[in-house]
Amino acid sequence: MAPVGPRSGDAIFSSIDRVNAELFTLTYGAIVRQLLTDLEDVEEVNKQLDQMGYNIGIRLIDEFLAKSGVSRCVDFKETAEMIAKVGFKMFLGVTASVSSWDAEGTCCSIILEDNPLVDFVELPDTCQGLYYCNVLSGVIRGALEMVSMKTEVTWTRDALRGDDAYELQVKLLKQVAEEYPYKDDE
Amino acid sequence: MAPVGPRSGDAIFSSIDRVNAELFTLTYGAIVRQLLTDLEDVEEVNKQLDQMGYNIGIRLIDEFLAKSGVSRCVDFKETAEMIAKVGFKMFLGVTASVSSWDAEGTCCSIILEDNPLVDFVELPDTCQGLYYCNVLSGVIRGALEMVSMKTEVTWTRDALRGDDAYELQVKLLKQVAEEYPYKDDE
Repeated sequence: MAPVGPRSGDAIFSSIDRVNAELFTLTYGAIVRQLLTDLEDVEEVNKQLDQMGYNIGIRLIDEFLAKSGVSRCVDFKETAEMIAKVGFKMFLGVTASVSSWDAEGTCCSIILEDNPLVDFVELPDTCQGLYYCNVLSGVIRGALEMVSMKTEVTWTRDALRGDDAYELQVKLLKQVAEEYPYKDDE
Repeated sequence: MAPVGPRSGDAIFSSIDRVNAELFTLTYGAIVRQLLTDLEDVEEVNKQLDQMGYNIGIRLIDEFLAKSGVSRCVDFKETAEMIAKVGFKMFLGVTASVSSWDAEGTCCSIILEDNPLVDFVELPDTCQGLYYCNVLSGVIRGALEMVSMKTEVTWTRDALRGDDAYELQVKLLKQVAEEYPYKDDE
């Protein structure tokens, strides 16, 4: 059974509390700058941003489920579509698309059409190796873990590093079986 | 001459790019947690949050001036009203009020009616002394410095510390005279 009546990302986005995107962008930039200053190691900053995102994701999933009306997704494919079409719209006001599925349906790419995190951002030469938007991969990983999907999320394209888009690879490592109160086909 | 036709905070807020407020709240929370972990000293965290805010404020003022249609304020009183009525609405989607003016018109309080930074936040006992929202005081200080007003901005009430509201005292220390192309009364 497909989930019944999820609200569109647009509808949700227009009905929830929001803050100015530039304030968010600048605030996020301030975090990254702070981490670069404090940790002095780009790899370590990547790790911290991912961990921050994870901590955000495990909480943001509640808001997602509460506001979106999305019920249980039938499989990982539907989950990925929900993230791209509803999640990104609901939280960042942008849309994303899903592509590059593997044969098993356990690995795909999410491509961002727009990325508010990087407005006005240019990386200096000293930041080569930085995944500036690593908070996003952490958010997805954290949120999915709360719905019993253990994933690995990595950047496969990053426009700040010279690529032509922002693309995240999301790989399902393990799906913990959940105890449903009833079976879908009962 | 009063500024001509500034747009209302509401009108501006509804016309600009925005992101989900909970994402912003959680992201800000992640910064504070990160700073507490890295710096291990509440006073130092207060300082860093203020400095981060300052760096954000000196850039955010451009967005404010560009989007609000506010031109030069005649005096510090009008400036404070603009921050409370237009600025807070435009960036955080909340309104604030100005009160407690001193006789000279150089010191006032800005009281927040709502504070999206602190949703879901409770400070543990180990964080006594933390000014959790210190980024805001920094933003105001930074933004005002870019329009030639040197200020001191401090929290006089903080609900996270047990007070009944969020109140910032804004004190004008020095106003650098600007070279106008013409005088207002010409």
